[in-house]
Amino acid sequence: VTRGPVTFLSDYGLEDEFVGIVHLVIARRAPDVAVIDLTHQIPAHDVRAGALTLWRAAPWLTQGVILAVVDPGVGTGRRAVAVEVAGAGTVLVGPDNGLLLPAASSLGPLTGAVELPPRHTGGATFAGRDVFAPAAAELALGAEFSRLGPAIDPGTLEGRPVPEPTGGQDGSLYAEVLWVDRFGNAQLNARPADVDHLGRIVDLQAGSFAGPARRVAAYGELDAGEVGLVTDSYGLLSVSSRAASAAARLGLRPGDRIMIGPAGATTLG
Amino acid sequence: VTRGPVTFLSDYGLEDEFVGIVHLVIARRAPDVAVIDLTHQIPAHDVRAGALTLWRAAPWLTQGVILAVVDPGVGTGRRAVAVEVAGAGTVLVGPDNGLLLPAASSLGPLTGAVELPPRHTGGATFAGRDVFAPAAAELALGAEFSRLGPAIDPGTLEGRPVPEPTGGQDGSLYAEVLWVDRFGNAQLNARPADVDHLGRIVDLQAGSFAGPARRVAAYGELDAGEVGLVTDSYGLLSVSSRAASAAARLGLRPGDRIMIGPAGATTLG
Amino acid sequence: VTRGPVTFLSDYGLEDEFVGIVHLVIARRAPDVAVIDLTHQIPAHDVRAGALTLWRAAPWLTQGVILAVVDPGVGTGRRAVAVEVAGAGTVLVGPDNGLLLPAASSLGPLTGAVELPPRHTGGATFAGRDVFAPAAAELALGAEFSRLGPAIDPGTLEGRPVPEPTGGQDGSLYAEVLWVDRFGNAQLNARPADVDHLGRIVDLQAGSFAGPARRVAAYGELDAGEVGLVTDSYGLLSVSSRAASAAARLGLRPGDRIMIGPAGATTLG
Repeated sequence: VTRGPVTFLSDYGLEDEFVGIVHLVIARRAPDVAVIDLTHQIPAHDVRAGALTLWRAAPWLTQGVILAVVDPGVGTGRRAVAVEVAGAGTVLVGPDNGLLLPAASSLGPLTGAVELPPRHTGGATFAGRDVFAPAAAELALGAEFSRLGPAIDPGTLEGRPVPEPTGGQDGSLYAEVLWVDRFGNAQLNARPADVDHLGRIVDLQAGSFAGPARRVAAYGELDAGEVGLVTDSYGLLSVSSRAASAAARLGLRPGDRIMIGPAGATTLG
Repeated sequence: VTRGPVTFLSDYGLEDEFVGIVHLVIARRAPDVAVIDLTHQIPAHDVRAGALTLWRAAPWLTQGVILAVVDPGVGTGRRAVAVEVAGAGTVLVGPDNGLLLPAASSLGPLTGAVELPPRHTGGATFAGRDVFAPAAAELALGAEFSRLGPAIDPGTLEGRPVPEPTGGQDGSLYAEVLWVDRFGNAQLNARPADVDHLGRIVDLQAGSFAGPARRVAAYGELDAGEVGLVTDSYGLLSVSSRAASAAARLGLRPGDRIMIGPAGATTLG
Repeated sequence: VTRGPVTFLSDYGLEDEFVGIVHLVIARRAPDVAVIDLTHQIPAHDVRAGALTLWRAAPWLTQGVILAVVDPGVGTGRRAVAVEVAGAGTVLVGPDNGLLLPAASSLGPLTGAVELPPRHTGGATFAGRDVFAPAAAELALGAEFSRLGPAIDPGTLEGRPVPEPTGGQDGSLYAEVLWVDRFGNAQLNARPADVDHLGRIVDLQAGSFAGPARRVAAYGELDAGEVGLVTDSYGLLSVSSRAASAAARLGLRPGDRIMIGPAGATTLG
């Protein structure tokens, strides 16, 4: 039985023909398989950004094959892999550099992994075209997972799931900025349930900001100039301000740590 | 019976994964339905530009579902709607903010409209993903229009058809700039038949230009530096000049009014 | 029998709705035919760049229809054509301006060509929408080639295959820069076999560079600052340097001639 569509993410951009050639390779082998472009504008070689984009999109991924290529280590010793997530009926194909693990882990337990053999073309490697796309096409057509290459231990795969926020002794939560979207919202690795015990007003330390902040349900509930915590459309908390970039104002970037604590805990000045 | 492909226009851009996630939502519900991207580069929140792009494309829209999302009012009280155009067998899905009406009106009489119920996700709204894409997928699969939500009066929908040009007493025509394309042609809401009674030379008042102008069949027939009226590939008149941006030279922008009158009517100086 | 997918390349860009409208025209006539976008970011009116992109992609083109539109001469006397390559079961559709010939020639002998009749719309021409896309759709559906228009002699088609490098008397090779990719690699019209007789160290004259250069298998084998010859992922030689733009350093642009000669032949001033 076929596994269904291929969802394709990369840092190839749309200037050149690279995305088109990967589509051609899949179409030649699997002409009836749909290929859905998630995005190809991941910043070049930014494995973390690609991994988090895939992780955010995971709830909407249909059963099928996920082809992901952000691959600064192409031509070095990094492995090319396919990873099976049994619970979700999903297979992920890409470089073993941490790109796949956050999405894979969030879809269910990893029940298998194989190393894809290299294909020598006599020149520089276009692994998306020569290694990953053919494997994705075969998997979409229903190829047995184990036929793609030698089995490897899923425990040896690079990367880690998206880290959970950690709690402090007074009920504080230490979280991490995952993404700054184009509106300047700083998405955190924390959900509303993680801070519900703190009430509607919390103390927030985030970049250059330290002080009380409100939790609100929508961006529009913030006052002009106010910094607050909003639940974004992915169900995650974000540090936001209304009609302005909170990230730019506070100097927040992906990877930064922030603290959400009980109101009154922060001493100003 | 299925309604056929979904044609998808938005202001999401291609930097982020938003377009890809809408495709995933449709693919999960309607895996055999084709999704055709019209464009996703409508300027952010520019409802007028989105509405006119859809209207220009209307003659080439196949029978099917049109999914359009340019939605500055998301999270406010604006309605989410689906609109049925009986004559053309076409359904349009999107926010009720004027985005749909020009294209819908040009396709035939509006024979029905429903309000799509909101879907509460507990956080900020990604209406394209949570409201509009599921509705578009169900309609593409052949869902009965009336099952999507409570019927509303099509006469209460926001927006208006693209305005017709108006005539003056001496045979003059007052028209509006709809669009400035990337070559600087200023497309008007007027067709050749609207000015045929004025002959091949007309008086034109458009931005900083006032004087006689020729009507020609192709951009190449204009002399260097000449401003003229060309019938563009949409069958509409445009104020153009050869190998230069007429809009930039004359200071024309979408929404500007221009006048086309009988030759000799304009008094210079 | 159907001919399979349509692969579509153009210089339309993605800002406007032009690519989407061509997709709509094909979908209306051939709803079950897949359309694969190779790229639409060919620099505007750059026929040479479009022709070479198509030629590079040729080995991955499936049997089917290639629709290519880079058409600075639209509205002038240039012919619209379809070209049949019998050996590969491939048909190319586009303007007769040299865009199609390099890819077509590389796919096999040209066994037929027809001129597509113009379609008069009463205004400026959108040939991609009105002439080329309908022809591509009919061919994808299996229309007999000869029914599309009057036969023309393939020998009269504009353009020429990608030129072969030429050899000098001492074993030197004179080659041409075909493409500078986004990493600054200057792709040549030469393959490894063309210079294997010269050994691993050659003399290279390329832009501002004149001196000995190594041939290596991967970009990473070059030392910092070193200029060398790498076999790229298309199997072609490129003038490259590590983690820097060789083209920018040496002032190389598409169309430039370079020389690869026996080591020691170059006399440095």
